[in-house]
Amino acid sequence: MEQRVSLITLGVSDVSRAVGFYRRLGWQGREVEETVFFQLGGLGLVLWGHDRLADDAGLDRSEPTGFRGVALAHNVRERDEVDAVMAEAQRAGGAVVRTPTETFYGGYAGYFADLDGHVWEVAYNPGFPLGDDGSLTIPDFEEAGQ
Amino acid sequence: MEQRVSLITLGVSDVSRAVGFYRRLGWQGREVEETVFFQLGGLGLVLWGHDRLADDAGLDRSEPTGFRGVALAHNVRERDEVDAVMAEAQRAGGAVVRTPTETFYGGYAGYFADLDGHVWEVAYNPGFPLGDDGSLTIPDFEEAGQ
Repeated sequence: MEQRVSLITLGVSDVSRAVGFYRRLGWQGREVEETVFFQLGGLGLVLWGHDRLADDAGLDRSEPTGFRGVALAHNVRERDEVDAVMAEAQRAGGAVVRTPTETFYGGYAGYFADLDGHVWEVAYNPGFPLGDDGSLTIPDFEEAGQ
Repeated sequence: MEQRVSLITLGVSDVSRAVGFYRRLGWQGREVEETVFFQLGGLGLVLWGHDRLADDAGLDRSEPTGFRGVALAHNVRERDEVDAVMAEAQRAGGAVVRTPTETFYGGYAGYFADLDGHVWEVAYNPGFPLGDDGSLTIPDFEEAGQ
């Protein structure tokens, strides 16, 4: 199995409602058969009905009541951008689940949830370089002296 | 908020145990402070303790009992690779949650779960081109006539 991921699919209760949140963030997606695909670098983020996703995977349709145990991170280049993106997410209808604070790794980060409770971290991490295209490179922690 | 994702963090009950599964798939990661980072193209997949992730996000530690409502997809270039990757995941200790079948979009796909119940789809989708570097491009569905 090659070391890569092609799609991240988030199960949502109502695709039209769910996509509104991401569109209000300025994201542009493509829709087909009540499924919305957003191109994020070399992969796609997909919004699909929770029940359809559960059925497709042959899993129980019951929705998790609390934390799903998964977080997506959106890293930014400057510390100030964390507050700006968190505010943007809140204006778009997202819920702030943790206001931004200093992090143990010398950064600054907060968390918000989209309309279906999918959790995003917005993080400024000076140890994780971002390329011009937004791609993230995992550092060599041994060289970094950590 | 730029249209991109930097990290996918999967909460796991035991990082050492969880990383074993991905290492048995041949994946190579970097570990620091009981956190493992795998470089997947322009982003990172992170294995981190479920409770630490929940605490970091300020969310309840309770783990979802059923489907988490999130699926990661690993698309392959040839139909036969689906069965091969599914078998590899099973040998590595993963659970087959849906044996591969023909899909409604003219492809072929199955699902497995890692040791913590995080669900991966292994899919052959002839309508979603993969680049030489494994990157996926969302097609223009209107042009494709769908």
